[in-house]
Amino acid sequence: MAGKREENKITIVGAGLAGALLAARLGQAGFEVDVYEARSDPRGKNHVAGKSINLAISTRGFHALGQVGLADDVMSIATPMRGRMMHSTAGQLQFQAYGVGKDDVIQSVSRSALNMMLIKKADATSNVRFHFSHKCVGADLENGGCEFVVEDKGETVHVEGGLTIGCDGAFSAVRRSMQRLNRFDFSQTYLKHGYKELCIPPAENGTHALEPNALHIWPRRSFMMIALPNEDGSFTCTLFLGFEDKQGPSFSSLTDAERVRAFFERQFPDAVPLMPTLIEDFFDNPTGSLVTVRSAPWYYEDKFALVGDACHAVVPFYGQGANAAFGDCAALGDLLTEDSNSDVGRLLEEYFDRRKIHIDTLADLAISNFVEMRDHTGSQLFLWKKRLERTLHRLFPKAFLPLYSMVTFSRTPYKEAVDRAARQWRFVRRFAQTVGVVVVILIALMLLK
Amino acid sequence: MAGKREENKITIVGAGLAGALLAARLGQAGFEVDVYEARSDPRGKNHVAGKSINLAISTRGFHALGQVGLADDVMSIATPMRGRMMHSTAGQLQFQAYGVGKDDVIQSVSRSALNMMLIKKADATSNVRFHFSHKCVGADLENGGCEFVVEDKGETVHVEGGLTIGCDGAFSAVRRSMQRLNRFDFSQTYLKHGYKELCIPPAENGTHALEPNALHIWPRRSFMMIALPNEDGSFTCTLFLGFEDKQGPSFSSLTDAERVRAFFERQFPDAVPLMPTLIEDFFDNPTGSLVTVRSAPWYYEDKFALVGDACHAVVPFYGQGANAAFGDCAALGDLLTEDSNSDVGRLLEEYFDRRKIHIDTLADLAISNFVEMRDHTGSQLFLWKKRLERTLHRLFPKAFLPLYSMVTFSRTPYKEAVDRAARQWRFVRRFAQTVGVVVVILIALMLLK
Repeated sequence: MAGKREENKITIVGAGLAGALLAARLGQAGFEVDVYEARSDPRGKNHVAGKSINLAISTRGFHALGQVGLADDVMSIATPMRGRMMHSTAGQLQFQAYGVGKDDVIQSVSRSALNMMLIKKADATSNVRFHFSHKCVGADLENGGCEFVVEDKGETVHVEGGLTIGCDGAFSAVRRSMQRLNRFDFSQTYLKHGYKELCIPPAENGTHALEPNALHIWPRRSFMMIALPNEDGSFTCTLFLGFEDKQGPSFSSLTDAERVRAFFERQFPDAVPLMPTLIEDFFDNPTGSLVTVRSAPWYYEDKFALVGDACHAVVPFYGQGANAAFGDCAALGDLLTEDSNSDVGRLLEEYFDRRKIHIDTLADLAISNFVEMRDHTGSQLFLWKKRLERTLHRLFPKAFLPLYSMVTFSRTPYKEAVDRAARQWRFVRRFAQTVGVVVVILIALMLLK
Repeated sequence: MAGKREENKITIVGAGLAGALLAARLGQAGFEVDVYEARSDPRGKNHVAGKSINLAISTRGFHALGQVGLADDVMSIATPMRGRMMHSTAGQLQFQAYGVGKDDVIQSVSRSALNMMLIKKADATSNVRFHFSHKCVGADLENGGCEFVVEDKGETVHVEGGLTIGCDGAFSAVRRSMQRLNRFDFSQTYLKHGYKELCIPPAENGTHALEPNALHIWPRRSFMMIALPNEDGSFTCTLFLGFEDKQGPSFSSLTDAERVRAFFERQFPDAVPLMPTLIEDFFDNPTGSLVTVRSAPWYYEDKFALVGDACHAVVPFYGQGANAAFGDCAALGDLLTEDSNSDVGRLLEEYFDRRKIHIDTLADLAISNFVEMRDHTGSQLFLWKKRLERTLHRLFPKAFLPLYSMVTFSRTPYKEAVDRAARQWRFVRRFAQTVGVVVVILIALMLLK
């Protein structure tokens, strides 16, 4: 595949969220798409699911889902979250809406259900073929294409490329090959916190045991627990806690059932009665780590492109990881389908140039939102700041939009959103200063009269 | 090799500067050391040398060389550089001493001669064995040891570890295996500039064609050329230039002999007559790239450690890359030899904790010194700042030491040097402010009299 896209052939590595969505998009546009996935067919019986934090899908994600005709289907399996519900150690609740408009809700969606829906949608297009149990072990940078080990058989097959798109996640084999290229920038950086998934099952009458239309947060400064509602009445809880911490609790100090129970009863007393399998879940479920991956460029010649976590894994605290990956699919899909006469290498460069700076901004936002969620959401100052944001937006609906709203409920590129938010606050500060000065002058004039 | 160091066995991957020095150090201390190197024996005939920028060895490097009894030998093949010699486009020269004392000189040393000397020194110890043409293809993290492909034979051998120390450079195979460990932080970041080595041969009478006891710099703001003296009367020149640059010259625009010649005659007119093989060198020699590598941690259990570029490649602009790698050898050697009863894993952690923060500081220093060398060294402000530093040091020899001196002519850990320099300048600024205020008050008092 040199220069012009004569062959119309696309190889996608990975049938996770990004790979399956991109397969659907490009398949619907008439490309011949082959998708290779390391795991077995999720539609089969012996399937083992991968990472399972449920997802928060918002405006950016729904835009890309809409492009393949799935927005309504996804909405039908989603649980809307209208805001944050903060739980204090004393069990007091405080609700705070996410958005400024009544339609500003985030949708909690099961990762596996969404993935299944995407695979079925892509597979419904006759020119998309899925090859499961094919584990990518490296890219052939010189000639294009990749090597795959076929599970069960143990044999290695070489798949000729066309354009190969790595959608194979934060530990991408395609990217690992690209890392050896001269002048390929790459970083993987882990947080000192890990995570553990736990469960709040449905209440006895089958309903949600907590307010269903909220993302629940137990902010405890150096750590936190969150819970997202599921369609079946359960909640998926995630405890974010330091791996090690000399001053406070950490995963390394929670070594037996007694300590885990004491920790939860002290920190999350209102949640414990709702978590009957707490101890089993805590010791059965793995402790996950949280990585930020950055890379550049996201393409190589006209042969390879990277999408989603494969080029830019972010930590989950802004609820934007999947939305950003879907945004990549939309951007790359738009370029490849709208301009079929262009040089593919040029289109890939354009895709990278459009996305890179914004995703770098998102990576920083996601890390800083961890501090906000676990520390600030519990403070009165934070609540007042949020109230001020809402008031300013009501007074100046066009001029003032909270950053969270721009990131979550618009498709404004991430960096533009951050820059605009900074400008807005600068204006507010200057305005307040001016008002202050005027008031002082007026008082002075009144006193002098 | 679990816990205590019962076996006394060390495997070193790489016989470059760090690997050979560490082999000598540990061999002299009685360890059984096996060194595996991908290239052929440099003492043989068909050896192909690797990267060849010559080195600037200073205080930190000589300390580690002294530990294996090589300081004097290295001094005997070195050419002292007393300062920077700046060349303007008009051919005007300006000299600036590096240090504040007369012994403050940097030694220009041939990388290959130094490497050879280190290998011979290590090999002189009966318990050090070199295995050349063994290319490491990965580390066995679970069991310890590494896989090597034996050149010529093409066979793969597995070497059992003992403690395995990766000294295999910026593209380390040992580190590449460690990168797959959970929570291993890693980054590789390239500068937008590349480099090209060129040559100024000895003058007709065999002497140096430029002042020999200086590092020559042709600072041209967005790019620069430097030249380091060699023992044989020649200079190794290095042109640092952007790979691409829309506003100015770049490697991508220097595509033919005519353009190269025109560029050099405009920018380095005094050097061109001294470079008879300029055009051949320019097109024969590769364009190198400049990478900063960071990683953490630099060890795994009690089985693996990383040293030098393998864990922290820095760009060459502070002349500290080899000195820092030698500093690692000194630190790790001190720990392993002084405390033979300790748990090896604990010693490796201690090695990492001692070095990491300082090398991170050096990486930043090296990048910012590139701007200083190519841009500021040509400015009057820079010369005045250097003069002020020297004056302050003469007035307060204990209290004020220029940063460059602390980095180059002391063994003060890098971050301590930077912190101290910041404190010094803060003090100078406050002092100047106080003097300013006092002067204003005095003038006011005089005027009021």
